[in-house]
Amino acid sequence: MIIGQVIGSAVATLKLECLKSAKILLVMPADANGKASGEPFLAVDLVGAGEGELVMVSQGSSARVSSGNASSSVDAAIVGILDSLEVGGNFSFRKE
Amino acid sequence: MIIGQVIGSAVATLKLECLKSAKILLVMPADANGKASGEPFLAVDLVGAGEGELVMVSQGSSARVSSGNASSSVDAAIVGILDSLEVGGNFSFRKE
Amino acid sequence: MIIGQVIGSAVATLKLECLKSAKILLVMPADANGKASGEPFLAVDLVGAGEGELVMVSQGSSARVSSGNASSSVDAAIVGILDSLEVGGNFSFRKE
Amino acid sequence: MIIGQVIGSAVATLKLECLKSAKILLVMPADANGKASGEPFLAVDLVGAGEGELVMVSQGSSARVSSGNASSSVDAAIVGILDSLEVGGNFSFRKE
Amino acid sequence: MIIGQVIGSAVATLKLECLKSAKILLVMPADANGKASGEPFLAVDLVGAGEGELVMVSQGSSARVSSGNASSSVDAAIVGILDSLEVGGNFSFRKE
Repeated sequence: MIIGQVIGSAVATLKLECLKSAKILLVMPADANGKASGEPFLAVDLVGAGEGELVMVSQGSSARVSSGNASSSVDAAIVGILDSLEVGGNFSFRKE
Repeated sequence: MIIGQVIGSAVATLKLECLKSAKILLVMPADANGKASGEPFLAVDLVGAGEGELVMVSQGSSARVSSGNASSSVDAAIVGILDSLEVGGNFSFRKE
Repeated sequence: MIIGQVIGSAVATLKLECLKSAKILLVMPADANGKASGEPFLAVDLVGAGEGELVMVSQGSSARVSSGNASSSVDAAIVGILDSLEVGGNFSFRKE
Repeated sequence: MIIGQVIGSAVATLKLECLKSAKILLVMPADANGKASGEPFLAVDLVGAGEGELVMVSQGSSARVSSGNASSSVDAAIVGILDSLEVGGNFSFRKE
Repeated sequence: MIIGQVIGSAVATLKLECLKSAKILLVMPADANGKASGEPFLAVDLVGAGEGELVMVSQGSSARVSSGNASSSVDAAIVGILDSLEVGGNFSFRKE
C-alpha cells in the first residue's frame, strides 16, 4: 500500500454502474513525513477519509476486491486513515 | 484510477476477437488541472467519451473485468467522464 | 494497452511448457506518431505481427488470460496491429 | 519480489476489517548491498520482520493471496527475511 | 516479460511456506544486447537458470500462477533462458 494525502475530490456524472455510489477522492502520493508530492490520482474512499488526511491506498486487484465487488472497475482504494508513522523509534508523522 | 485526456483514437483491423467491437481511444495522462502530458496509451471506451474530454481510466485487472468479459485482453478502460475536480475547496478543473 | 513497435524476436529453447508454442517478439514502446524509444521487452504474439509493425500490447493478467491459458506465464501479449492513430482529426500514424 | 529494508511502522486505527490484525510496516526499497533509498511504502508483515532487517517484499495479487485472505486489500507483503545476497560468488549483503 | 540477467542469489531462512523449496535468484533488468543495468530484484527460478545467463522474467499474477501454486507469494519468475535476441535481422545477443 502506498501513503497518500487526500487533496480533493472528483465528480463524474457519467460513469460505470459499479462506481455510482462511490466517493471518488483525489490523492497525492506522500512520503514518511506525510509530505505529498507527485501526480495525483483517483481513489475510491472505503473508510470515510477527509481532505488533508494521510491515508493508506491499495492498488490493483487488491483495491478491486476490497471494494466489495470483484467485478468493479476500482483499481485504487483508500483502505485506512493513518494516525502515525514511526521511523527509527521517532514519529515521522503524527495526525494532529 | 488515473486522470486522462482523450486525445485521439486508434484503428486496428487485425486484433483479437475480444476487442472486435471495442472503441479504442488514445489517452494522455493528465493532472488535477486537466492538463495532459506524458506518453499516450490505448484505452477501451466504456462510457462514450469524446475527444478532448477529461476521463477516469481504470487499469489492469479492474479494466479487464469491468469491460464485461473476464477473459478480455483489455488492460485499460475509460470508466467515467470527469465533470469537475476540486482541490482545497476550489475547482481545479471544470468541464466547459 | 500500450503502443509498441516490433523490433525483433527472441529464441529460448529452455522455457516453461506453457510458452513452448509461443512466438516471442521483442517490442519497443512507441508514441502516438509511431516513434519507438525506451527499453524493449518480450511479448507473445497473438495476431501474427511482423517486424517493424506498430502494435497494441496488453500487459499483466489481461495478457495472461487472452493468451488462451489462464495459468500461462505470459504477462505481455500483442493483441492487435495498428493501422492508424488519429490525434485532433489528423493521422499521427498511418501504416504504409 | 523486491528487496526492501524495514525502516519503521504505521498506525491506522480506522481501516478496513481485513487489515485489523495486520502489522503494517514502513519499507524502503533496497539494492543488492542492502542499501535502502527511494520512496517508502506500507507492507503487511507475514514473517515477523523487525526494524532494520532486509526483507523480501511481494507485490500485487501475490501479496493479496499470500496474506491468507483472497479478498484482502493487501497489495504488498513481507514474505521473507533475507540472510544474505550473493553477487558473482561474493556476499553483497550478509545479515549481522 | 522482461529481459534480465541472473547476477546472483538470495538466502532467506525465514520465509513463507510457499517459498520454502524455491530457488531465489537476483536478477538485473537487461536490454536487447544483453547488457544489464538498473535495480536488481528477486525472482523464483522455474527453469534452472545459472548466474550470468540472460533470462525471460514474468511478473505479477503470471509469475504467481506459473509457479504452480495459485496462492503463492511469487510475483516474479524466471520462465525461460534466452539463446538469442535478433533485431533487424541481426543478432543483438547470442548465448556463448
